[in-house]
Amino acid sequence: MATGYSELRNELVSAANGVDYAYRDTGGGAVPLVLLQHFRGNLDNWDPALIDDLTSNRRVVTFDNAGVGGSTGTTPDTVEQMARDALAFLAAMKFSQADLLGFSIGSFVAQQIALVRPAIVRRLILASSAPKGAADMHGWAPDVIGAIGTPKTSPEEYLDVFFAKSASSQQAGKEALGRMYARTLDRDQATTWATREAQYDAVCAWGIPDHALLQRLSGIDLPVFVANGDSDPMILPRFSYLLAGLIPRAGVKIYPDAAHGFLFQHHADFAADVEAFLA
Amino acid sequence: MATGYSELRNELVSAANGVDYAYRDTGGGAVPLVLLQHFRGNLDNWDPALIDDLTSNRRVVTFDNAGVGGSTGTTPDTVEQMARDALAFLAAMKFSQADLLGFSIGSFVAQQIALVRPAIVRRLILASSAPKGAADMHGWAPDVIGAIGTPKTSPEEYLDVFFAKSASSQQAGKEALGRMYARTLDRDQATTWATREAQYDAVCAWGIPDHALLQRLSGIDLPVFVANGDSDPMILPRFSYLLAGLIPRAGVKIYPDAAHGFLFQHHADFAADVEAFLA
Repeated sequence: MATGYSELRNELVSAANGVDYAYRDTGGGAVPLVLLQHFRGNLDNWDPALIDDLTSNRRVVTFDNAGVGGSTGTTPDTVEQMARDALAFLAAMKFSQADLLGFSIGSFVAQQIALVRPAIVRRLILASSAPKGAADMHGWAPDVIGAIGTPKTSPEEYLDVFFAKSASSQQAGKEALGRMYARTLDRDQATTWATREAQYDAVCAWGIPDHALLQRLSGIDLPVFVANGDSDPMILPRFSYLLAGLIPRAGVKIYPDAAHGFLFQHHADFAADVEAFLA
Repeated sequence: MATGYSELRNELVSAANGVDYAYRDTGGGAVPLVLLQHFRGNLDNWDPALIDDLTSNRRVVTFDNAGVGGSTGTTPDTVEQMARDALAFLAAMKFSQADLLGFSIGSFVAQQIALVRPAIVRRLILASSAPKGAADMHGWAPDVIGAIGTPKTSPEEYLDVFFAKSASSQQAGKEALGRMYARTLDRDQATTWATREAQYDAVCAWGIPDHALLQRLSGIDLPVFVANGDSDPMILPRFSYLLAGLIPRAGVKIYPDAAHGFLFQHHADFAADVEAFLA
């Protein structure tokens, strides 16, 4: 490609729901790979190294959902409404079908989209994910929400949750942060406290224990790739196994010496695994 | 050890339920590792190479459950009764605590024991296993039950189900069969058609789809190691992920280029993983 993710301009598209969505689009290939971002993240919180690795074979689109970062509107407090808002973005982009890569809360939204509008999803990638209603998923551990849920978070707190304790993982985290902050021009708007509040309400609602809800996943009748780091303190790897056990056509991979941000730490391996899955 | 599994003598112990249980006992260590056998299997259907690998660090005990092989009594048609019968054996052996390694239907029995008599289980290994009530587990695929469910089965049919299609796996299977049939003196009694009928009824009852039953596994509150081959046609690897997702303290490993009999094919690796888990 001509330019990397760090130089892609911010674009806006107006959707039928009245929201103007901020997005970045690498252009290229046929079926786009649309990425759904983590808790409190905006366009700048995707590691450019990962996007560039993914882009070598296909079109990648990142966007801010309604109310998040540079998009207008209000951040809803349910994953169900976030899915509707994401579908409005896909419609505004005139995507009749897409591959979805959902990360953390973005993976909850991706699951919901696959259930309510299966026809629009070609293949699904769930990164650092968990099923709705799973036991022991109600809110994040005190040290996790204490680190990344405060009004002003620090790089150290980010590294604590997104990367493992080992020196190698912490170093990978610093490098990922360096890549994310290398861009100085035309950065996305920071996410607000209102977004944080609404998104955490949605995370807690998703985690209300309800064993019966696990059965929803049998309705995701398409190829799914589930992935996480082996030391994720935010969404335990165990929930990746649960997803892979309940979704009829799922594969799973747990990346070593990595936490919530395994896909940034292992960007080359993960992008290659994603490409093998999508190809 | 002085002698390998191939030379261990058959022993009998009389239990309070009136059954005389056939077993083999390597002797040694403190907490015994008790093995629960697969569909239609008897004492001779454990690969001696696996038992010998496991024995290097601990006492290993194999036995025929009630009605199976050299044990007296009647094979029951429910996993629940098989668990009671296995508990009667453990009591007759005066084992106040044991590590359990259940293989296939033996892993169903092991799960049931962990639920009804948790105090007797120190650690649990589930090989080629699945939860009670899991969707898509009701009876075995026609080619599987057609191969290993007939009145007289052949080595070729055994290799088809217990080993993968690759030349390397088939070769490993032939070697495992060679080790199992090397013993000519004092072989165990063959399992009967009545055992086959009762055990398959129990397998089908275990597989009656019932999503609510999956929640039972949250009650297995002890360290569990779940393992399978990546190409098992009898009990899909997906069910190992489901177990690992639902049991709070479970690890999981899927062995490459292997099927139902992965633990014989990869006997050295699996025994080392078991030892690391139990130690």
